Amino acid sequence: MKRLELTQLFREAKAYGGKTVTVCGWIRTLRSSKALGFIELNDGSCFKNLQVVFQDGQVGNFKEITKLNVGTALSVEGEVVLTPEAKQPLEIHAASISVEGTSSPEYPLQKKRHSMEYLRTIAHLRPRANTFNAAFRVRSVAAFALHRFFNENGFVYAHTPIITGSDCEGAGEMFHITTLDAENPPRTEDGQVDYSKDFFGKKTSLTVSGQLNAESMALAFGKVYTFGPTFRAENSNTPRHAAEFWMLEPEIAFADLNDNMDLAEAMLKYAIRYVLDNCPDEMAFFNNFFDKGLIERLEGVASADFARCTYTEAIELLEKNKDQFEFPVFWGCDLQTEHERYLTEKVFQKPVFVTDYPKEIKAFYMRINDDGKTVAACDLLVPGIGEIIGGSQREERLDVLTARMAELGLAEEDYEWYLDLRRFGGTKHAGYGLGFERLIMYITGIPNIRDVLPFPRTAGSAEF
Amino acid sequence: MKRLELTQLFREAKAYGGKTVTVCGWIRTLRSSKALGFIELNDGSCFKNLQVVFQDGQVGNFKEITKLNVGTALSVEGEVVLTPEAKQPLEIHAASISVEGTSSPEYPLQKKRHSMEYLRTIAHLRPRANTFNAAFRVRSVAAFALHRFFNENGFVYAHTPIITGSDCEGAGEMFHITTLDAENPPRTEDGQVDYSKDFFGKKTSLTVSGQLNAESMALAFGKVYTFGPTFRAENSNTPRHAAEFWMLEPEIAFADLNDNMDLAEAMLKYAIRYVLDNCPDEMAFFNNFFDKGLIERLEGVASADFARCTYTEAIELLEKNKDQFEFPVFWGCDLQTEHERYLTEKVFQKPVFVTDYPKEIKAFYMRINDDGKTVAACDLLVPGIGEIIGGSQREERLDVLTARMAELGLAEEDYEWYLDLRRFGGTKHAGYGLGFERLIMYITGIPNIRDVLPFPRTAGSAEF
Repeated sequence: MKRLELTQLFREAKAYGGKTVTVCGWIRTLRSSKALGFIELNDGSCFKNLQVVFQDGQVGNFKEITKLNVGTALSVEGEVVLTPEAKQPLEIHAASISVEGTSSPEYPLQKKRHSMEYLRTIAHLRPRANTFNAAFRVRSVAAFALHRFFNENGFVYAHTPIITGSDCEGAGEMFHITTLDAENPPRTEDGQVDYSKDFFGKKTSLTVSGQLNAESMALAFGKVYTFGPTFRAENSNTPRHAAEFWMLEPEIAFADLNDNMDLAEAMLKYAIRYVLDNCPDEMAFFNNFFDKGLIERLEGVASADFARCTYTEAIELLEKNKDQFEFPVFWGCDLQTEHERYLTEKVFQKPVFVTDYPKEIKAFYMRINDDGKTVAACDLLVPGIGEIIGGSQREERLDVLTARMAELGLAEEDYEWYLDLRRFGGTKHAGYGLGFERLIMYITGIPNIRDVLPFPRTAGSAEF
Repeated sequence: MKRLELTQLFREAKAYGGKTVTVCGWIRTLRSSKALGFIELNDGSCFKNLQVVFQDGQVGNFKEITKLNVGTALSVEGEVVLTPEAKQPLEIHAASISVEGTSSPEYPLQKKRHSMEYLRTIAHLRPRANTFNAAFRVRSVAAFALHRFFNENGFVYAHTPIITGSDCEGAGEMFHITTLDAENPPRTEDGQVDYSKDFFGKKTSLTVSGQLNAESMALAFGKVYTFGPTFRAENSNTPRHAAEFWMLEPEIAFADLNDNMDLAEAMLKYAIRYVLDNCPDEMAFFNNFFDKGLIERLEGVASADFARCTYTEAIELLEKNKDQFEFPVFWGCDLQTEHERYLTEKVFQKPVFVTDYPKEIKAFYMRINDDGKTVAACDLLVPGIGEIIGGSQREERLDVLTARMAELGLAEEDYEWYLDLRRFGGTKHAGYGLGFERLIMYITGIPNIRDVLPFPRTAGSAEF
């Protein structure tokens, strides 16, 4: 059996007119009268369904076919008939239909409107529903777009480790990993759990960021990026947080904060453009059913210049409208999502980089500015979401970095290798992190992170 | 400062002849006489070094430069001088040199031969050494080649979860994940650790395979692949095993074992061809220093048809030479690396798929053949390595699958969602797993998995 994928059939519709082909897929809908039936078939190769027309007398098992349940897998041989007057460009007139895998009336994904909450309970089947079929294809296409962007620009893809022996990456609560028997772990003489007997000979955790390792790679290759799963053991039950999510972290040497922002802007525009160009059906679906202004907004982002303003300027802008906010605004405060969205949606009305944050609210490795108060950080805020990218120029000056670590009570011996990167050819460098799910939420308009992750892991939930 | 990357300078050498450019990079070697100096500069954008010539009187800080240590980061402005008679196509005559980041005599990567074991102790710096610079670039290029291959062929990239609530994926020992206090975990009334209080409300582990989730995605999209980190908590201190490694797992619907092998063969040839074409300097290095026959062998693999034979035929072939093996050969035995290598290196002298293994030595989800004794499995064996790919057609028949699970004592309730994939449109499908590090070892000739992973995690070791 040589099966023709629907994506190819639709792409080269005219060439297939009048030809006999074999297609395979799953029944989305089926309706029939006495001697005539119609099946909407989807094979997952594209968003569109194919209309299969079958007639008694033409297919031997007409009766059997009319009784099939939604979700059944079929193989259909038939003639491609072009239908230029109809909504769909073509249909197939079946000569034979064979059942590849049955379904049943208990199929949980019957043709009707299901709540997103219900669909999460059938995560193993929901990729067959339009929303998730579109979301996970966009996710795949966006991931490829990012790989392509960095590849075209000469970056090395660095596989930084998931398991880390450091529990001081400083970006959030961590999951611990162990092979010790939790019921009865080995103990040291003073009664503590003896991690020297654990698999790695010490306490280990799931990484919260590949950045420190990526810096090591950037100071060898010049330009690198990581792209992989990242973890936060934060018990925050919000639509924006998952315990396991994908993060993309580029790191560039001989580069400062402006180079960093130029890179982030070019990358984001490239990814958005690529998805718009390569997922027109999926994006039209999201535009129709999730957010009527979606495509227009994304087209705008892909072509506009992003704004840039300092944190200090941003605070001034926000203070003028402080009555609009739940959280107080003052120099030194961490920006809340309401502040971020106000800046990007009301003030600038486009994506905006906010730079040079107070050092107290940012990580130890960010480069101290000449004012001694702020660091060379840059967060990118986008309409509808708020922060989507967080980055900084890294502190490359050994003395400044160790002084900052001492201020924060970080032990130098935990960071010896990281400090080595400053001792030996530690040129200026910068990087950022893009929360990949945030990007997919932004591109699709899907408001909950649980619906852009195929099998989401959140507090209390690790099903499938 | 607009820096020119060395890869571009070398690629368009002629166009840059006579031009003034700025390059940045790290000193690999430096030698100087009274008034003339030479620096080999590497910026990580390519394997090649650039020769920088600097003269007293031409650069203001000649004395300072001559005293710099290996590993120092520099910015060099100067004229590109084409040198068609020399080994290198061009050099730069410096007009000015500025120090971007100093190094010191303690730099652990002095210009001399270091053992691979020593270099592992400086994993944060070793990407600057030729072997690792080449290995991790090949790794990056091969990863991109795989993404490109699957993208060009219409696959959806599926991000399957790392954290799993199932500890019965059956592919190996697992790491456990927890946020409970190991010193004093909450306990149930009967004194057991109370995992209902753990982050996910139950016991969770690091995945050993994304396959079961990938099957769910394949039965919606038709063709998917996963590519991400995978974990085995096996205390095996061998050159071929790491606790954390990357695996690529395609899964295709409406496809059988032959389709699966066709895909694996096409993918492997594509990846090898892509690396040979895009990493000529790196591959020449490996051919010279690791394995003189490397490129010739890979060229052969990329162009030859792979052989196929059944396990039963393979056992017959091996039994004829059983005196050559340490481990006994008999129908029903698991093939050892020595057997695998004998088949691919001596008997077939090219990559060979061995198919239809006894069901007893394969996983529960593999499709039972009509003989009732063997399963539709396919392992790809390659010269120099042995098994590099393991795959199978999956058992799509619900009754056969549940009977097999009962035989093996697997509880149906642990696999309800997986069985649903057979209840609802469960067409025939197949897939395989490629150990990505095995592929990189195969392509580079590097014999130890610790040296193709940037920051390897193995029993007793999770440094950096």
